[in-house]
Amino acid sequence: MKSYLDCVPCFVRQALDACRMITKDEKKIHELLRKVLVTIANANLDQPPPVIVSAMHRVIRQELDSPDPYLALKKKSTEKALLLAPEAEKTISKAENPFEAAIRFAIAGNILDFGAKTEWSETLVRDSFEKAMKVPIVDNQASELYSRISLAKTVLVLGDNAGEAVFDRLFINRFPGNARVLYAVKGSPVINDVTLADAKDAGLDTVAEIISNGTDIPGTHLPATSDEFRKIFYEADVIISKGQGNYETLLNCDRRVFCILQIKCESLAKRYGFSLGDWVVTITGKE
Amino acid sequence: MKSYLDCVPCFVRQALDACRMITKDEKKIHELLRKVLVTIANANLDQPPPVIVSAMHRVIRQELDSPDPYLALKKKSTEKALLLAPEAEKTISKAENPFEAAIRFAIAGNILDFGAKTEWSETLVRDSFEKAMKVPIVDNQASELYSRISLAKTVLVLGDNAGEAVFDRLFINRFPGNARVLYAVKGSPVINDVTLADAKDAGLDTVAEIISNGTDIPGTHLPATSDEFRKIFYEADVIISKGQGNYETLLNCDRRVFCILQIKCESLAKRYGFSLGDWVVTITGKE
Repeated sequence: MKSYLDCVPCFVRQALDACRMITKDEKKIHELLRKVLVTIANANLDQPPPVIVSAMHRVIRQELDSPDPYLALKKKSTEKALLLAPEAEKTISKAENPFEAAIRFAIAGNILDFGAKTEWSETLVRDSFEKAMKVPIVDNQASELYSRISLAKTVLVLGDNAGEAVFDRLFINRFPGNARVLYAVKGSPVINDVTLADAKDAGLDTVAEIISNGTDIPGTHLPATSDEFRKIFYEADVIISKGQGNYETLLNCDRRVFCILQIKCESLAKRYGFSLGDWVVTITGKE
Repeated sequence: MKSYLDCVPCFVRQALDACRMITKDEKKIHELLRKVLVTIANANLDQPPPVIVSAMHRVIRQELDSPDPYLALKKKSTEKALLLAPEAEKTISKAENPFEAAIRFAIAGNILDFGAKTEWSETLVRDSFEKAMKVPIVDNQASELYSRISLAKTVLVLGDNAGEAVFDRLFINRFPGNARVLYAVKGSPVINDVTLADAKDAGLDTVAEIISNGTDIPGTHLPATSDEFRKIFYEADVIISKGQGNYETLLNCDRRVFCILQIKCESLAKRYGFSLGDWVVTITGKE
């Protein structure tokens, strides 16, 4: 998808939130914001939002002289997610449909933006995870996905955030059949997106082969990914995309992609027939 | 007050809303937005938000090659407000405290942003005006204002938006005593702020002397106002400020100012002990 004019104020707000999360120095934040505004002014809106967001975060990393300003937050996210995982796994095991239950926790993991929280509230987390089994899933393609995985030789999972990856592991654990599973991470750090090191911390290497998509775009913008990644993308029998960034970059792509996400943007919701906050398991692209 | 970092994404959103209200050409809006982003990047945040907003709107007017892009919307606002005025006046007349009732409609006029509505809903308007008499007034300094006006020789009212000015007229009509009343408008068009022509359309010349503040800043930023205006400002016995733009520019000024407004910004609300959406009749500045 292209970026909309409505994305522009949202980019600026995201940049401010990002700066605030990684530094408390108001002067530094103002400096960063000025440069981000110019970056956004020069951006080509024919590109998907994650491509413009990646340009913003390149500026932020460069200005902070830090290759991974979210590193500490990502570590904390993963630690907290690891503490939550056993209870989630217990619920999944007891569920009538453990595969769908595992999808629900993979979405719940996306909701709990560990990186954004400075104070950890066990109650808040418990509430959110209790909600996980009750939220209606929109356009629920879980059983179609189950059938596809059963028959697949190769399944490619496109990861989203650190921390959340722990729940992707529980999900992959529930895959039927004997497919080879590949878990794609970002080629280098961007925001709190999962990288190779983060995925290992989350234990993804115990259930999948971790591969890089070769870019620092917080999505899967195929023209920017590596040749090696694209080969895997086009050869995989089943592709599962986690999160809105991957969804935005893969809408109308030339492969069938199962998208598991929470709708976090009003404009996107309106244009694609969802509501803000929807939990979605949908299919995009063609095959 | 200074601008906050939180103002920055809000400026961009306001600019987008503004562009959309005055043109439907998406390419033109994108071009405008790019230039506004650069203007905001270069802005000095030590200035109050209306000063930065005025710089944005100068860019928009220049790019659209239009000295008053909101003219048609302002005309419509005034027409609609004039239709509503008799009913409001009837309610004010019947009220236990007509002075406070008139203040309430002067705030209600600020809420109904006629300019923002493409479709006119009589029901919506009636509902809002019915609400006018029920909303609690925060820090209600109406009776203090009443006493001050009773004793005043000169009262200066700082206008806000076109349309809303019609209700300012009903309010001024309820002033006690025999004060000379001056109604300040913007020196030249900016957004839907009331100018000399708009104030005349609203009939303000029947209850007050209309004067210009000499600037195109959507507030009353004293350093930018004309010498003539500042003389009146410092000599008036009572100053009444309408709307958030005037409030933001006059916070901590060296005159006592009665501020009548609805709180439309979360950051401002937090910093000054209000809640978003509060109807306020407060005093700022010193004397």
